[in-house]
Amino acid sequence: MDLWFTEKHTDDVNFTIKVKKQLYSGKSYYQEIDVFDTYEFGRVLVLDGFIMLTEKDEYIYHEMVTAVPLAVNPDIKNVLVIGAGDGGTVRELTRYQSVENIDMVEIDEQVVQVCKEFLPQTACRFDDPRVHLFFEDGLKYVRRKQNEYDLIIVDSTDPFGPGEGLFTKEFYGNCFKALTDSGILINQHESTYYDSYVDMVKRTHKRIGASFPVTMVYQAHIPTYPSGHWLFGFASKNLHPVYDLKADRWNALGIKTRYYNTELHKGCFALPNYVLEILENS
Amino acid sequence: MDLWFTEKHTDDVNFTIKVKKQLYSGKSYYQEIDVFDTYEFGRVLVLDGFIMLTEKDEYIYHEMVTAVPLAVNPDIKNVLVIGAGDGGTVRELTRYQSVENIDMVEIDEQVVQVCKEFLPQTACRFDDPRVHLFFEDGLKYVRRKQNEYDLIIVDSTDPFGPGEGLFTKEFYGNCFKALTDSGILINQHESTYYDSYVDMVKRTHKRIGASFPVTMVYQAHIPTYPSGHWLFGFASKNLHPVYDLKADRWNALGIKTRYYNTELHKGCFALPNYVLEILENS
Repeated sequence: MDLWFTEKHTDDVNFTIKVKKQLYSGKSYYQEIDVFDTYEFGRVLVLDGFIMLTEKDEYIYHEMVTAVPLAVNPDIKNVLVIGAGDGGTVRELTRYQSVENIDMVEIDEQVVQVCKEFLPQTACRFDDPRVHLFFEDGLKYVRRKQNEYDLIIVDSTDPFGPGEGLFTKEFYGNCFKALTDSGILINQHESTYYDSYVDMVKRTHKRIGASFPVTMVYQAHIPTYPSGHWLFGFASKNLHPVYDLKADRWNALGIKTRYYNTELHKGCFALPNYVLEILENS
Repeated sequence: MDLWFTEKHTDDVNFTIKVKKQLYSGKSYYQEIDVFDTYEFGRVLVLDGFIMLTEKDEYIYHEMVTAVPLAVNPDIKNVLVIGAGDGGTVRELTRYQSVENIDMVEIDEQVVQVCKEFLPQTACRFDDPRVHLFFEDGLKYVRRKQNEYDLIIVDSTDPFGPGEGLFTKEFYGNCFKALTDSGILINQHESTYYDSYVDMVKRTHKRIGASFPVTMVYQAHIPTYPSGHWLFGFASKNLHPVYDLKADRWNALGIKTRYYNTELHKGCFALPNYVLEILENS
């Protein structure tokens, strides 16, 4: 059988992967949810037609949103995760014994249920006693919090559809308020390669900068996202992602990673000129 | 009209781009040559069905094979370029006033002719008086050379078809011999993301290491190559690509680049763990 899934990276660029079987297809209150089994990437989660993760390379995204802040502040104890229904971010966080509490706020319970059934590679640590799941709007949840979390990870969908509110100035301001004095905010920051994404990146960077004194951007190679050149935001009240890196302490933890290492940590903040220019003109 | 070009990144992954017009299609003695005008990437050069460059992002490749060695040794005067028929590597080299001579050895004259006609963005500096074009097999050319070049850039097609001989142990040994004592060899090193490429990367790395005491690998984001995570080899007789970086001297040249900068230079040698493991097991 010749079954192919296509994601439109732009109107004029398609990324197409051969599918063994469609394992799940459903529609929640918020979005369309699909899971495919594929030849090249293993199982693939698709929301509203966009690839969210593949079993082949999800570790890149999930290591990069967790190891980077935890190597800057190994004393992080209380973490808020917004979105991340697939469970990959929680899985990585539970590898750190020093983390005492993980609150995860996902708007769409159906995503978590589907991932528990079809993506055990990522949805495997929801039963850790430190993890508390809240099925509600992250935007509203964070409004009620003050000086509580050492780390907030915004592991959202793109800035349209259900994730839209997680890219607003009000939301970033509330994240600042919800963080402790050494707090760090990590967010997925889209990509600057295709022109159609540039305005979103600029807007996000500007809005975070309106609340946080330290706002840096770092990059990773994630081949199954549009262009494969993916950006993340690192914002904080006072910690610098490179100058404050505690490489020795992180390495002493002995956490085995497939993408992240502390040399790459320093390297991933060195952005190409064309990306720097876009961020500077935000 | 709905005209699309597809490159198979693997048997199970297609990258497909919308085409305005096929500007050229021909067959040389060595390979099939196509040039498309596309909506997203401008003009695109395709050899034997594989994208070699696009006007949108060719600067990434061409800056990374030239600025990296020239920032490590700003005294490079005599350069040998093998392959590179599109002219992009030569264009970048001619921006360095300190470079006195550029010998370019391309096996396929027809590629140069087609690029001169259809890709003026890259094929624009062949008339620089320092540039000397030789249409012959780079493998044979380099056998005759000894202690002559400060830099050899192997800007070849993939390790099958006409480029195959440029990935052999004999070839790398001859490059070592052709280089001066401070000589640097840069080669395009494929990618490790898709399993189907891994053996080639290992073999290449091992073969270069058999001749050169310093063999490092660096990376760039090139979205129009398979996986977008592309590797380059930096081999030398004694210069280290990061410890010997002359950032101040390179920055003083005032060369405007769109991807490369000297911070990124340091960062691009910090590879992900899964790439390091593949290279270590070569």
